[in-house]
Parts: sequence; structure tokens; C-alpha cells
Amino acid sequence: MNCKITHDGFDVFESIKTASVRSGIKKKGEDLALIYFERQATFAAVFTTNKVKAHCVIYDEELLKRNRTVRAVLINSGNANACNVNGFEAIKEITQSLSSQLDIKENEVFIAQTGIIGEEFPTKKVINAFTKLKDNLGKNTQNLSRAILTTDKVPKIISIECKYADVVFHIGGVAKGAGMIHPNMATMLSFIATDLTLDQDTLLKALKEAVDKSFNRISVDGDMSTNDTVFIASTNEVGELISEENEFYRYFVDKLTECCVYLAKEIVKDGEGATKFCEVLVFGANNDEDAQKVARCVANSLLVKTAIFGKDPNWGRIIAAVGYSGASIDVEKLEIKIGDYFVYSWGKPQEFDKIALLEYMRRNDSIKIYINLNIGGSNFNLYFSDLTNEYIKINAQYHT
Amino acid sequence: MNCKITHDGFDVFESIKTASVRSGIKKKGEDLALIYFERQATFAAVFTTNKVKAHCVIYDEELLKRNRTVRAVLINSGNANACNVNGFEAIKEITQSLSSQLDIKENEVFIAQTGIIGEEFPTKKVINAFTKLKDNLGKNTQNLSRAILTTDKVPKIISIECKYADVVFHIGGVAKGAGMIHPNMATMLSFIATDLTLDQDTLLKALKEAVDKSFNRISVDGDMSTNDTVFIASTNEVGELISEENEFYRYFVDKLTECCVYLAKEIVKDGEGATKFCEVLVFGANNDEDAQKVARCVANSLLVKTAIFGKDPNWGRIIAAVGYSGASIDVEKLEIKIGDYFVYSWGKPQEFDKIALLEYMRRNDSIKIYINLNIGGSNFNLYFSDLTNEYIKINAQYHT
Repeated sequence: MNCKITHDGFDVFESIKTASVRSGIKKKGEDLALIYFERQATFAAVFTTNKVKAHCVIYDEELLKRNRTVRAVLINSGNANACNVNGFEAIKEITQSLSSQLDIKENEVFIAQTGIIGEEFPTKKVINAFTKLKDNLGKNTQNLSRAILTTDKVPKIISIECKYADVVFHIGGVAKGAGMIHPNMATMLSFIATDLTLDQDTLLKALKEAVDKSFNRISVDGDMSTNDTVFIASTNEVGELISEENEFYRYFVDKLTECCVYLAKEIVKDGEGATKFCEVLVFGANNDEDAQKVARCVANSLLVKTAIFGKDPNWGRIIAAVGYSGASIDVEKLEIKIGDYFVYSWGKPQEFDKIALLEYMRRNDSIKIYINLNIGGSNFNLYFSDLTNEYIKINAQYHT
Repeated sequence: MNCKITHDGFDVFESIKTASVRSGIKKKGEDLALIYFERQATFAAVFTTNKVKAHCVIYDEELLKRNRTVRAVLINSGNANACNVNGFEAIKEITQSLSSQLDIKENEVFIAQTGIIGEEFPTKKVINAFTKLKDNLGKNTQNLSRAILTTDKVPKIISIECKYADVVFHIGGVAKGAGMIHPNMATMLSFIATDLTLDQDTLLKALKEAVDKSFNRISVDGDMSTNDTVFIASTNEVGELISEENEFYRYFVDKLTECCVYLAKEIVKDGEGATKFCEVLVFGANNDEDAQKVARCVANSLLVKTAIFGKDPNWGRIIAAVGYSGASIDVEKLEIKIGDYFVYSWGKPQEFDKIALLEYMRRNDSIKIYINLNIGGSNFNLYFSDLTNEYIKINAQYHT
């Protein structure tokens, strides 16, 4: 039951084509991308929980309620199409024009957008690029994944080939992240496909399970965007229909989760200005909510984030964050470990090898913080990045 | 009923003396301070809501339960006396030694501490400095307010003389802040005195009212410390006893609030690396909790804070923070104003004079953001600072 992992994204699927072009929304570089399904693909998606939603999110949510299949996903960077004057009008014109260009139905286009909030959407620029976009369709996951980046730098691509009960199937996808990354998905987009056969409800259920263990467990700066979207489609080319939570479903969810965790981790690693990839693992909380509260408070603490950037095992800042998390704790039972080093245990600071721990903070690109509350049975883990000068520079200079 | 505002702190009280010395807890500079009351002073205090509390906070909370009066407040910087091995032992030795030195009772000493968490407290260094500390007692508010600073730079001192119904009374105090500043008081200490006569319960009630409108409405980085303390004492030298919420009580609370708001604002202005003093004013929320949620999400958003540092009126980041605050909102009714400029109103981005707003962001040290949810009658305001390179530098370099 082993899988082969590659980084070809959608290129592993014969019936999926991708393309990207420069339409001129951004000042430079490609900013428009298309995922094209040669046949109707079953789709599902999860969206931001921000109450201020981009127009594309509101549009897609409706689409998901009414339709089971799509033929195209259009993605642009540079303009979030949120809180602006012509949001829905833009989407109407775009879906009309693109569907006619691709000879598909208007309601078979899924839209994802990222970029600045509040600016009029340059519909014409986008529509003018459709011919070229169509002409470029091919095995272009690399280019597509670059075109959807904003302040992140590295394309995030995964593909995996698995075998279950003689059925060979694939999962492939891409993601973009960078800033505004927070548990419950921040300005992050991810697009995933599989050739396995699933109905829409089952696909959505699988996606929710996978997202809950991946994209909902990352934090760069604690901000949550208006545009977050994770999309999945099934080309239904392989296997028999999975429509219930059988063993094959569980296997698929595991593999989908693996892909999502990979992409989520890549997002954190490529977080704005990040120098360290960090994980906080909380154990022994009274309940799941408390475990989450502790993990999120530690991961979002500016003092913890800057200490990690400063390569300083400042556990005082960690314990302070645990304390103000709102979770039930008993200081006398609390344990904190950084890497392999216990720094605080059962109410007492620990003697530890300071030089060795300092070396751990310095030499590793990946830092782990373990917190055991020792009062219950609930656990939670969260991936996060440190906070650096570079983050400030990027976000103070990103002008409207 | 006008008041005279000065910046002499405790120096306005004949029966209160202050002193500060260097004991050697910090690598350089004075780090130990004393407020000495010539006669028993009624006291009250409010503390951090962090569940991990410094030993001094636990000690003071007990003191407040058992005693009505104090004669001395000992304050040190450089060591928080939190989560360390000898916390209570240190406090025991210190209170014994100081009370014998000052010829007061052991349970008449209030302790406040700030600095690094988890390090053994250098009891001997502190005790060795007591003779000199006593010798220095005088009108030394300026020096005292410097000795209690950590990474903040500017002493924060207020004093005010008021007259009510022919009673002339004073309020005077100091504060220290800088990092870890958050609503609900972060690593901030404040010490306030009055010569007005109040019983302990009334004094505590007044302090809570004032703190709720001042120190609980500031945010530098969203972290909350283990040591936050606001202390107040009354020398009971002026007026008749106030023991109920009469008109004089209300007048006193107003004036005490003024003093606390001044000190709270000074803390934000002197926040680590801060270049702008910001205020977010939320109106029209469904309830008080929602109004607070919106204010806190905006004030703690790294993207909003860095945009202000970048002098960029990026209202997209503000509206996104409003959206993920968890408060009930109706985007179609939402209004956002930066300075005098409406940027978003009733569901639509507004045309505004971009050059003028940019000038407002550039030229003013003080930035105001107004958010009207237009769905209810609850309001809340919060003072906060921007987020800068300097903050990262300070907190990445502040080593354990």
C-alpha cells in the first residue's frame, strides 16, 4: 500500500490541462491561471470563515450548492475582488466570456482570487487574456503554481500515486500562501484533483477531514483572509464509486491528508519573511478546545515568534502564552519541552544543557515545542513560522 | 471643578517618599525602587488575568485579602520572579529584611516585579541594597520611574490637584510598560496614590472602574504577562471618608480614570519600537463583547499594525480583521473611517482623497480608525501601537 510521491501536480492527470498567462492585473509577472477538465469533474470546496467574504467566495459557495460538476477553475492574483464596486458584475462577465471561449457551460466555472482588497476588478484585462490562456493549455502545473503566488516565493506542488485493492489512483495539487496565514485558512488557495471516483458529498467530507488536519493547523501571522479556498475535483476515471465511509474512503482520506499536510507545511516554510518552520504540540488538555487554545496562543505570540527568530529558547514567553490562552491549566502539572530539552516540568524550571539547546535553536530550520498540560486527554498540533524583520518589511511596503 | 495637572508623581504627597538604587539584578542601571508611606495607607490592587502568575502576584493577592493597609511598595526590574525555583522564599526573605530595615510590619510590604521569567531570584543582591535604598528616600519619583523601566524608555508620571466641594485632593502615580502590552494589562506596572480618604472596598471599586477604561484598553503586541499589577494607596489625609458611590466618589473615579488613561496612553506611545500611537473606535455593535472583539482584532492584526507603520491606509486589512473578529456584522451596513476619511461605507468602498489620507498617515504621530457596525448600540475603544522593525529587533535580541 505504499505510494509514490512526485511534484508534478495536475500533470499526472491526462484529462486535466493547466495554463497561465500575464493579464496585467499585477505590475509584473503572470497573474492568471486556468485548470481545465476535459470532462465534467465532480467538485467540492471549503472556504474562509471570515464574515467579510470576497465576491468569488460568495459566488463559489452558491455554485457548490447548485452544481455537482465543473469544467474549469480560473484563478487570478493581484486583485482579491473583495469589498469592491464591481465584484459580482466582474464574475458574471468573466464566467460568460470564459465559458464561451472554452465551449463549456457558464455554471461550470469555479473562480478563485487573491490580492488586494477593495480595488475595482479589471475585468477587461482578464477577458482579453482568455485566448492566450486557452492556447497555453497543457502540462503546465509549474507555471500555474507560480502565477498564483503573491508574496510567497516558492511553488508548492504535490502529486502522489497510490494503489489500494488493485486500484491505482492519483492525487495532485498546488497551493499558495504567504501572509495572512492563520488556522482556519488565511489568504491561502489550494487546488487539488484526484482521478478516483467519488460523489460530491463524499468528496466534500473527505476534503473537510483533510483540511482540518492540515490547512487549519497553520499560522503565519494570525490574520485570516476574505478569499481562502481549498478546492478539490474528481475526474472519476478510476475505481468504483466511493459514496460511503468504507475502508477505501479512509485510505483516500489518509492520502489526501498527506498531500494537504505537505502543502500546508510548504506554506508555513514560505511564510512572509520566515526563517524557521515551527511546530507546537499540545498534549494532556482537558478538552480539544483547550488544546487548540494553547497551541494557537503560543503560535500567535509575537514574543514567542520573535524569540525563535532570535534563536533564543525563551520558555518564559511560552509559559506566559499558555497562561493567557484561556485554557484550563494547572501550573504545578505543566511540562514544556523545546526540541529534546525539558525546560519546565511539574511546576519547576528545569536544569538543561543551555549550550546544547542554543545549538538546537541555531542549527535547526525546524523547531518543535512540546507542551503537556497533564490534566486531560486532548491533544492538538499547529505549524507556524517565526516573526522577522523581513515580515515587517514586506507588509509595511506592500502598498495599496 | 478644574484640576491642575503636573508630572510630579508621588512628590506631591508630603507623607510619601520614594527611592531607587542599583542592586545588580540588571546588567546596568537602577533596578530597585521603593515607595514608602510615613503612616499606614489603605491599599487596593488589580492583577494580571494570566493563569501563570508571578510569585509576587500570588503573594500580593493574598496580602490584599488579609490586610487593609501597607507602608511600603518594593519594585524591581530585571527579574519577574515567576516560574522560578525560589520565588516565595525570595519574597519571604525580602519582606522580612525590608520591614526590619524600615521598622514596619512584615505584612505591610507590597511587592511588584518585572523582567525575565524563570530565573532564580537574586535575593541577596536585593537585600544588600536596602540600606542605600532607605537612605535615598525623598522626593524621587523621577528616579523611581526610571528604575522600573525594562525596554521602555520614557518615565511615565502624572500628578493632579483637584477640588471638590472645598476639598483639595491629589492623585499621583507612575507606570511602566513597553512590550507584552495587551488589553487586560500586560507586563505593565502602575503605582498610584491619593490623599483622599477612602475605605479599601471603595478604593478597589474605583481602581477597577478606572483600569477598565484605561490600562485594559491598550495593546502593543497582544501578549499578556505574568506580573501585571496596578496598585493604589490612599493616605487618608484629606476629606471625609468616602465609602459609597456618592457624587464625590464619581468625581474621584473620573479624575483617577484621567490619570490612568494618561499613563496608559504613555505606555502605548512608548511601546517597543512604536512609531505611531493609534486608536480604534468601534461603534454600533450588537453588544459590548462584540464591540471589544472587533477593536481587539483590528488592534492586534499584524497586517493592520504593519500597514500603519508603512503609512498605508490599507483598509482592506482593517475590514478583513473586522470580518474574522467573530463579532456579528452586516457587511452591507459597515462603515470604516481613517482619520476624517470614509474609506468604506454601507457595503461599498468610498472615493476618498488618496493624497490627503496618505498625508494624514505620514504626518500624524497619532492615527484614528473609526468602525461603525451600524447594527446596535455598543461601543468600545482601544489604544494600540504599530509594529516595526525595531520591535522585532528588541524582542529577537532580548536574550534569556
